[in-house]
Amino acid sequence: MKKIAIINGPNLNLLGTREPEIYGKETLADIRKRCEKKARELSVKLDFRQSNHEGELIDWIQEAGREASGLIINPAGFGHSSVAMMDALLAIPIPAVEVHLSNIFRREEFRHHTYTSRAVRGIISGFGGLGYVMALEAVAGK
Amino acid sequence: MKKIAIINGPNLNLLGTREPEIYGKETLADIRKRCEKKARELSVKLDFRQSNHEGELIDWIQEAGREASGLIINPAGFGHSSVAMMDALLAIPIPAVEVHLSNIFRREEFRHHTYTSRAVRGIISGFGGLGYVMALEAVAGK
Amino acid sequence: MKKIAIINGPNLNLLGTREPEIYGKETLADIRKRCEKKARELSVKLDFRQSNHEGELIDWIQEAGREASGLIINPAGFGHSSVAMMDALLAIPIPAVEVHLSNIFRREEFRHHTYTSRAVRGIISGFGGLGYVMALEAVAGK
Amino acid sequence: MKKIAIINGPNLNLLGTREPEIYGKETLADIRKRCEKKARELSVKLDFRQSNHEGELIDWIQEAGREASGLIINPAGFGHSSVAMMDALLAIPIPAVEVHLSNIFRREEFRHHTYTSRAVRGIISGFGGLGYVMALEAVAGK
Amino acid sequence: MKKIAIINGPNLNLLGTREPEIYGKETLADIRKRCEKKARELSVKLDFRQSNHEGELIDWIQEAGREASGLIINPAGFGHSSVAMMDALLAIPIPAVEVHLSNIFRREEFRHHTYTSRAVRGIISGFGGLGYVMALEAVAGK
Amino acid sequence: MKKIAIINGPNLNLLGTREPEIYGKETLADIRKRCEKKARELSVKLDFRQSNHEGELIDWIQEAGREASGLIINPAGFGHSSVAMMDALLAIPIPAVEVHLSNIFRREEFRHHTYTSRAVRGIISGFGGLGYVMALEAVAGK
Amino acid sequence: MKKIAIINGPNLNLLGTREPEIYGKETLADIRKRCEKKARELSVKLDFRQSNHEGELIDWIQEAGREASGLIINPAGFGHSSVAMMDALLAIPIPAVEVHLSNIFRREEFRHHTYTSRAVRGIISGFGGLGYVMALEAVAGK
Amino acid sequence: MKKIAIINGPNLNLLGTREPEIYGKETLADIRKRCEKKARELSVKLDFRQSNHEGELIDWIQEAGREASGLIINPAGFGHSSVAMMDALLAIPIPAVEVHLSNIFRREEFRHHTYTSRAVRGIISGFGGLGYVMALEAVAGK
Amino acid sequence: MKKIAIINGPNLNLLGTREPEIYGKETLADIRKRCEKKARELSVKLDFRQSNHEGELIDWIQEAGREASGLIINPAGFGHSSVAMMDALLAIPIPAVEVHLSNIFRREEFRHHTYTSRAVRGIISGFGGLGYVMALEAVAGK
Amino acid sequence: MKKIAIINGPNLNLLGTREPEIYGKETLADIRKRCEKKARELSVKLDFRQSNHEGELIDWIQEAGREASGLIINPAGFGHSSVAMMDALLAIPIPAVEVHLSNIFRREEFRHHTYTSRAVRGIISGFGGLGYVMALEAVAGK
Amino acid sequence: MKKIAIINGPNLNLLGTREPEIYGKETLADIRKRCEKKARELSVKLDFRQSNHEGELIDWIQEAGREASGLIINPAGFGHSSVAMMDALLAIPIPAVEVHLSNIFRREEFRHHTYTSRAVRGIISGFGGLGYVMALEAVAGK
Amino acid sequence: MKKIAIINGPNLNLLGTREPEIYGKETLADIRKRCEKKARELSVKLDFRQSNHEGELIDWIQEAGREASGLIINPAGFGHSSVAMMDALLAIPIPAVEVHLSNIFRREEFRHHTYTSRAVRGIISGFGGLGYVMALEAVAGK
Repeated sequence: MKKIAIINGPNLNLLGTREPEIYGKETLADIRKRCEKKARELSVKLDFRQSNHEGELIDWIQEAGREASGLIINPAGFGHSSVAMMDALLAIPIPAVEVHLSNIFRREEFRHHTYTSRAVRGIISGFGGLGYVMALEAVAGK
Repeated sequence: MKKIAIINGPNLNLLGTREPEIYGKETLADIRKRCEKKARELSVKLDFRQSNHEGELIDWIQEAGREASGLIINPAGFGHSSVAMMDALLAIPIPAVEVHLSNIFRREEFRHHTYTSRAVRGIISGFGGLGYVMALEAVAGK
Repeated sequence: MKKIAIINGPNLNLLGTREPEIYGKETLADIRKRCEKKARELSVKLDFRQSNHEGELIDWIQEAGREASGLIINPAGFGHSSVAMMDALLAIPIPAVEVHLSNIFRREEFRHHTYTSRAVRGIISGFGGLGYVMALEAVAGK
Repeated sequence: MKKIAIINGPNLNLLGTREPEIYGKETLADIRKRCEKKARELSVKLDFRQSNHEGELIDWIQEAGREASGLIINPAGFGHSSVAMMDALLAIPIPAVEVHLSNIFRREEFRHHTYTSRAVRGIISGFGGLGYVMALEAVAGK
Repeated sequence: MKKIAIINGPNLNLLGTREPEIYGKETLADIRKRCEKKARELSVKLDFRQSNHEGELIDWIQEAGREASGLIINPAGFGHSSVAMMDALLAIPIPAVEVHLSNIFRREEFRHHTYTSRAVRGIISGFGGLGYVMALEAVAGK
Repeated sequence: MKKIAIINGPNLNLLGTREPEIYGKETLADIRKRCEKKARELSVKLDFRQSNHEGELIDWIQEAGREASGLIINPAGFGHSSVAMMDALLAIPIPAVEVHLSNIFRREEFRHHTYTSRAVRGIISGFGGLGYVMALEAVAGK
Repeated sequence: MKKIAIINGPNLNLLGTREPEIYGKETLADIRKRCEKKARELSVKLDFRQSNHEGELIDWIQEAGREASGLIINPAGFGHSSVAMMDALLAIPIPAVEVHLSNIFRREEFRHHTYTSRAVRGIISGFGGLGYVMALEAVAGK
Repeated sequence: MKKIAIINGPNLNLLGTREPEIYGKETLADIRKRCEKKARELSVKLDFRQSNHEGELIDWIQEAGREASGLIINPAGFGHSSVAMMDALLAIPIPAVEVHLSNIFRREEFRHHTYTSRAVRGIISGFGGLGYVMALEAVAGK
Repeated sequence: MKKIAIINGPNLNLLGTREPEIYGKETLADIRKRCEKKARELSVKLDFRQSNHEGELIDWIQEAGREASGLIINPAGFGHSSVAMMDALLAIPIPAVEVHLSNIFRREEFRHHTYTSRAVRGIISGFGGLGYVMALEAVAGK
Repeated sequence: MKKIAIINGPNLNLLGTREPEIYGKETLADIRKRCEKKARELSVKLDFRQSNHEGELIDWIQEAGREASGLIINPAGFGHSSVAMMDALLAIPIPAVEVHLSNIFRREEFRHHTYTSRAVRGIISGFGGLGYVMALEAVAGK
Repeated sequence: MKKIAIINGPNLNLLGTREPEIYGKETLADIRKRCEKKARELSVKLDFRQSNHEGELIDWIQEAGREASGLIINPAGFGHSSVAMMDALLAIPIPAVEVHLSNIFRREEFRHHTYTSRAVRGIISGFGGLGYVMALEAVAGK
Repeated sequence: MKKIAIINGPNLNLLGTREPEIYGKETLADIRKRCEKKARELSVKLDFRQSNHEGELIDWIQEAGREASGLIINPAGFGHSSVAMMDALLAIPIPAVEVHLSNIFRREEFRHHTYTSRAVRGIISGFGGLGYVMALEAVAGK
């Protein structure tokens, strides 16, 4: 059974209470549940994690590159500044998809650019938790 | 039965033969078929069009604003330059989603920015024809 | 009797319903009526048009250059991107005035610049439909 | 009877002799006369002033905010550099209009931007003395 | 007999009267005659067109890609803003040459860059109608 | 007894009524009172002034350089544009502190930079009238 | 008794020996003592920490958001690059103040901007250890 | 006998004590004496002034335009920001020369540009008080 | 008999072996032969030279200005950096044409701009050795 | 016996398999062996580490500052974004050298700049594992 | 007897005929005569040269550094691009003055900046041949 | 026996006396000796040259391309401006290494970029004369 890693970046553990007018009321646990439901439909195994530590996220991306067959990453704030995270994504042989809950192009100028988007197959931005489900289909789907 | 408009911008009529290493081998007719299959699953009606004329695309966006309940737009090259198309999207009361076949963030610098992305719910970039199907779920799905 | 052309750019056909907090509640028909009233006072004939098509707008600017004695243009979104429309204005021998309903300098950065403003006698921005009446006085007045 | 303040910035006292190919041959006294004629038609009282001193202009803007019901300002060169004058305009509760004699968008790049334009209802540029009359109608008109 | 398409962009129909100090006194008809004379020498067939409509120009570029063996394009003002026209040129399998009547590098800064130049074999700028003849030699010549 | 000069720039005389959602409801007189209370605690003498005139502010900075032992300056709008005021601060031998009522870094881009901050010991921004009291401690405290 | 968190970023553990001409001779322990003295005066409890790890700092900001009633942050070098730390500050419901020991506006250009300053009540820069005491008054004071 | 106006901008009254490592030890009175000596040699009359007030400097430039036959201006800090002072220089019919005591091109980036330099015959920068004498020769010399 | 100077800049002596995928396999001798053949047709005399020395190239441009009736210049790398070479072209009274073998607009960003293009009648870029022949027709043709 | 710290940044643990066309086929273990061989020749002791965690790298730089007599750092992706790592290097009293495996100046624009290069004695870029050996000679050599 | 070197850059040998509306009608020989007359007054020896070769100019600057006691340089076009010439000026122990015939600040944007100005005592721009005489006084004067 | 060319750019002949606080006290002759000693160890022949003439340096790079098996270049000031020198390096088939005596990244902004670095195998900056020895090992070593 294929394993898909879903890696969540900084502050996403606060979803639901963090600026809900931007990020919505769904918690990360809610999103996890939606993903697990979809994973069962797609017959894939999920490895769903969150960290506020850039280094840990890079470790996990590398681990996914060895152990999973696909990767979904919500880099959150690190996407805008982390060349190192982009380099980790470039270094792994599995397809990756970048997800953002909000539409980053309707927000402050500095959020319009992510380094990570240069290293993934595609980007999905603005669909809240649904974006993760879409990404799962893209990574794990037929 | 809800109607979803799918509006395709310039040069997308050439899909399949146009720089296939970037845009893939699927033709626009192939994408239309995938969308129609998904539309049947979602019990929505599609209105699928393509034009190389910015004015016609704006007319169609306005028309969709009056007659459809959701809009999927692949602005192609106009996304990068057309404030007018962005304004049309801002002027209509229905949810819209922007789709790009290629991951525009892995391409030339001037393709990283679209005006239209400021006027839609979300953006999906890099998934080829599958991106349209994802967008349909986002616009028409539960 | 002198003829004044009034040419309206993309999305202005939606006035009244389009983002009324920015553009006001007057429709384009309302503005036309105000202009016609003023035209009668000034004893000039009006040719009032709107299009979402850049090419058609350029055709009309050229036509006005041959058949009218003055031109009022609200380029809307095309003003920010269209060198071609600026070139059309530069190519005609009659005085032209640029009008914007909203004060474009209080809006997004990319709206602060218009190419067309380099090719007209003057610019009037921020006065809603009244701006057209002012422009008529400037173009057709003594 | 309503009072409208008309405040003129630096070097406008030289009108008529100052670079007439740009600013025209009308003197500031001529413009004052045109404004007073219009004011009588509109049944408003004028307070017409000029200064080369930014601080004095700010004092006058504040005074207008207390004593007049509308303000017309030609900030001249200060418009391009004075955040303080913009702040004064933002601080007063009456409608203000910015006027420029020449079309600032056909001139040097640094003249295309004014801070003051962010703090007024609208801007009129390129109509010589007529621009003041237009502004009077906008501020004092029905 | 080979066919060469010559496609002219916005405002070129006004040549001869449009800013002759920049564009010269030759009309588009004059240029067409020079081209036809050269075409006879080169034993090629010409398809010479002009439009102010970006969409029509894109349609014609695509058509040339199917039916001609070479393309000469004077994008005029659209060259500076149209990613869509560049994409059309990138999508066709025939050699294309970009021509400008004036030397665009001696003019305003925004005219120094064209998107279309990234998608053609070469660019010829500053030689008036002769530039078309040169281009014909390059595209149709031995 | 040490004297501390407190110099307030343009439009600060309007505090309390000027955009209170940004600047708060305290008037400049209220702030003066808070400062005088603190001054008594610190056993220093205050010289508290306000002007809308850049030249007068420069004169006062120079005067403070001769007569006071410390300076607190709220340059308001002049901070963003006045090299001359920065030069005055560089020219005096006493420690100076820059105070802003609002957090200038949460406002428009052009307010994020002040020339004056390059010429002072430190900057305090965002604490309303309390900022002046903090500055007094820094300048006059042990 | 209210708790105030004081969180110190990278390299601040080296204070006293690290470039003392810029940062002064006070050690972080010295600053902690000054803060504790002030805290006793203000009857608040302190939680004073330092880390070189961005992720740990984000964890602590989140923890402060749950357990403290105010936050003082010296982001040091992370302030200039960390969108993630800014996002953490935006996500918590307690008032925060940013402190820098040196006046960052007198240093290299890239130090003039901090992301974190967009997410705090105010910023205090250039007062060495005293800045922490000021911040305590602002956060914990009456 | 010809009159030459010498107008000195903000903070130049502090010469001799103000940052002598940059501006030297000569006072403005010393410079005035050097100029008067030179003026006697050249048989011209001097009108030597200094002000910290931009408005007063503009008044004086206009006055010089009416009453003197040449102008020497050291705009000091206002040179970098004052479009209004540039406009005053453009408005007067007499030759003007800009002088700076220090070589502004060896200093901070923002000092490399002056608006006033666009409106004078020439600029002399870096020669201390001698620069005024050179300027006198240029303006009043044979 | 008219003389046309053809001046070739740095590294063009290596043509044929230098990055042939960019510059083609023709040597400079081959190009010279093509030019001489064309010159005989046009009944003009050629003076064909190459140097890697900017100063020598400037000397030759000046010499051509005295002795030839037209100039063709391939500035190669110096075109992107040499104001001095542009000034030489501006200083001579004969028509000049700039030629580039490759289409410089399809290459690195810094190759898109040449100073020399501001000083010539026109530019021909992307046609290999044929570009020289075109230029000869433009300079020496009827 | 002197100790030299060699600190490797993010993703360098993947060397050999990570984009070998850029980074080569040597693994980090191979590089370590080359360094240890060189260290024996130079009679120095090595402390060779790698981490994906910016904070850990900063801790190690500080540790090296206390315990080693020289430092070699390959900051990898963190070099481009980490002011904090630069600050750590500035804070330590031992000589440091920056090494990059690839020539960062032949790669994407954002890789041309590193903050860390401002805080080291020198930089060696483009020599693969040999660069480490060179750096060892520079840091530990006579 | 002191020797002053006067070094003239590219195209200055064409003075008198080269764009006389910008550079005036004086030839370089005329300027040399003016300088020699002034030199006799100042009892200094001149070494007056001109070259179009950057390398030769650098050689001469170095030679002047060994053999002259002062240097006057008109770098002409090389001033805008030559770091090497700036470095030569930085490397020599004698005072240098930069002269430009025209006021470079009234010309194209790229002429406003010279590298050489960062390496000289002062700059004199806009006074034609008189500028050389002024420079002689500054370099050779008491 | 392999030959390695070492080519030194402008002003390097002045080493030892030229700004020794930046470039050190070693002369170019000293560096040559170090290189020759190393060359003997490596059993390669050196060709060590210096010129202030860009054209000569390009000639020498081309010559090295024909006659040497490796190249070490210190482009000095030309590295920052010379596309032509970069093109010469791109045109030759032998490996090249760029050396700078000082760490160019700790100096003025304009020294952080060199064109030549895009055309070499690697760059070594900041190690004084030792950098040449390192480069020799890289180019000539096993």
